[in-house]
Amino acid sequence: MAFDKLIEKIVEMQNPTVAGLDPKLDYVPQFIKDECFEKYGVTLKGAAEALLMFNKALIDELCDIVPAIKPQAAYYEMYGPEGVKALADTIAYAKSKGMYVITDGKRNDIGTTMEAYATAHLGETKVNDDMLIPFGADALTVNGYLGSDGIKPLLNVCKEKDKGIFVLVKTSNPSSGELQDLKLENGETVYEHMGFMCESWGESLKGQYGYSGVGAVVGATYPEMLKELRAKMPHTFFLVPGYGAQGGGANDVKFAFDKNGIGAIVNSSRGIMCAWQKQEGKTEKDFAEAAKVEAVRMRDDIRSVTGEMKLK
Amino acid sequence: MAFDKLIEKIVEMQNPTVAGLDPKLDYVPQFIKDECFEKYGVTLKGAAEALLMFNKALIDELCDIVPAIKPQAAYYEMYGPEGVKALADTIAYAKSKGMYVITDGKRNDIGTTMEAYATAHLGETKVNDDMLIPFGADALTVNGYLGSDGIKPLLNVCKEKDKGIFVLVKTSNPSSGELQDLKLENGETVYEHMGFMCESWGESLKGQYGYSGVGAVVGATYPEMLKELRAKMPHTFFLVPGYGAQGGGANDVKFAFDKNGIGAIVNSSRGIMCAWQKQEGKTEKDFAEAAKVEAVRMRDDIRSVTGEMKLK
Repeated sequence: MAFDKLIEKIVEMQNPTVAGLDPKLDYVPQFIKDECFEKYGVTLKGAAEALLMFNKALIDELCDIVPAIKPQAAYYEMYGPEGVKALADTIAYAKSKGMYVITDGKRNDIGTTMEAYATAHLGETKVNDDMLIPFGADALTVNGYLGSDGIKPLLNVCKEKDKGIFVLVKTSNPSSGELQDLKLENGETVYEHMGFMCESWGESLKGQYGYSGVGAVVGATYPEMLKELRAKMPHTFFLVPGYGAQGGGANDVKFAFDKNGIGAIVNSSRGIMCAWQKQEGKTEKDFAEAAKVEAVRMRDDIRSVTGEMKLK
Repeated sequence: MAFDKLIEKIVEMQNPTVAGLDPKLDYVPQFIKDECFEKYGVTLKGAAEALLMFNKALIDELCDIVPAIKPQAAYYEMYGPEGVKALADTIAYAKSKGMYVITDGKRNDIGTTMEAYATAHLGETKVNDDMLIPFGADALTVNGYLGSDGIKPLLNVCKEKDKGIFVLVKTSNPSSGELQDLKLENGETVYEHMGFMCESWGESLKGQYGYSGVGAVVGATYPEMLKELRAKMPHTFFLVPGYGAQGGGANDVKFAFDKNGIGAIVNSSRGIMCAWQKQEGKTEKDFAEAAKVEAVRMRDDIRSVTGEMKLK
């Protein structure tokens, strides 16, 4: 239940990180693009096949040391329906390799529409009497601006299918404070209020390691808020973007973890996908191996602040 | 520029409404499903083809009297990549019939990721030296919780490609107030603050009829707030959900319009898609004709509160 499966994987691998798969075509090595364009033409289909081939090679290298991937939906949608198919195929491939999959879609809507998103990304769609899996991720990022009507439809699917969600609370970008840091009449900030709603939504989705199935996105770029929210949201598992390319380091993310070294998973996307560019003597042919080197470095970097991760 | 093309269409047709195409398979007549399942199997592909056939028949009936459609992305995503292809095909078909297309995706993210969403839904994707259109809508709904970093990447695409966005301000659902109605220290509500941000974002995207390319979603179910926001957001065009099935009527939406009868477009989804169920003597075979009857009724209902719509 909740994020138990993910937490067990993190402890087993002693690695609280997730590889963001946000494959812009610019990041994909030329030899992969050449092969796919030759086979499928210089088309959205050709581009999508290149993304998929790139992702599969990364997953092959990472699956033994990184517990999870986080594909960002936007980078697939920009290649049209073919790109979205590459997202579905990437999810299926990662799951076949035993990885936990968090689709970063920041979806939001209400009632039956939010049910449709929950079904799309985490559940099964009924077609006549068959139940079919549209995308099949393990968790989805969502935006809570619409309140409980936007979150409750997800909770049913999470309970039935053993899935989780991450609600945006305090995001890693420079302007996140324009709305999220505003002070309310009662002295709370908007992000704090959102955090409290997460704690409350999570009550119906309790896990056995102290964390509910309603997680929160809290950026590595605001370490003091990470510390504050860790204290105020003791049952909420954190997804932490902003490590690496966005500027956050191990010392910035350390507050996201509890005394057992669990309670959070830290994301790196470009840092891993484009690792070969920063490693001496590597060419783009070495992208997957270089990604693994960076993933190990990142794991060890974060382990240096969490210590050993324990389930209880 | 901005929403000028949409406003001109509204005035030309004297109809400030948009047909929401949120085609759950349950809404699609059995004879369409039978035909598609026979051809493509009881699969996500079969389901997606049924949605597309349903949408095309609706568009054929509606395109002469309704200026725009609003497909809701969730209902396509729940049928997987094949469903998402039906979304792209629906958009292309509606545009070929001269309709304005608002993709309801409530997308949100930051920086290059938001650029990817902007490219996906409103722009063109570069593949080698070719520029290809992934979805090609005219406007996209977005969620502003992440602040300016989440909106500015859209404004460039809007300017270059003559497109628009609608930012969620005050949504139509019962729990929308949980966050949106909270009072800030300075006395503003969260939704008001979001509204003011829309006015400010819109300054770089001015249109010739007084409205910018940054619109706002404001629900019909909160008429007093619609009135308040119309006064406070004079340059922001409103997309108004909540008419019909959600309970709003002409008297609830009248405050969304300015003295020229423009400034807003009112959405109805289920009311139009499932109109045959509420019209005497109609069977599901009559769904498209019944949709037109309801669209005309809705147009006339709303016209009764706007009067003649004028450009200036």
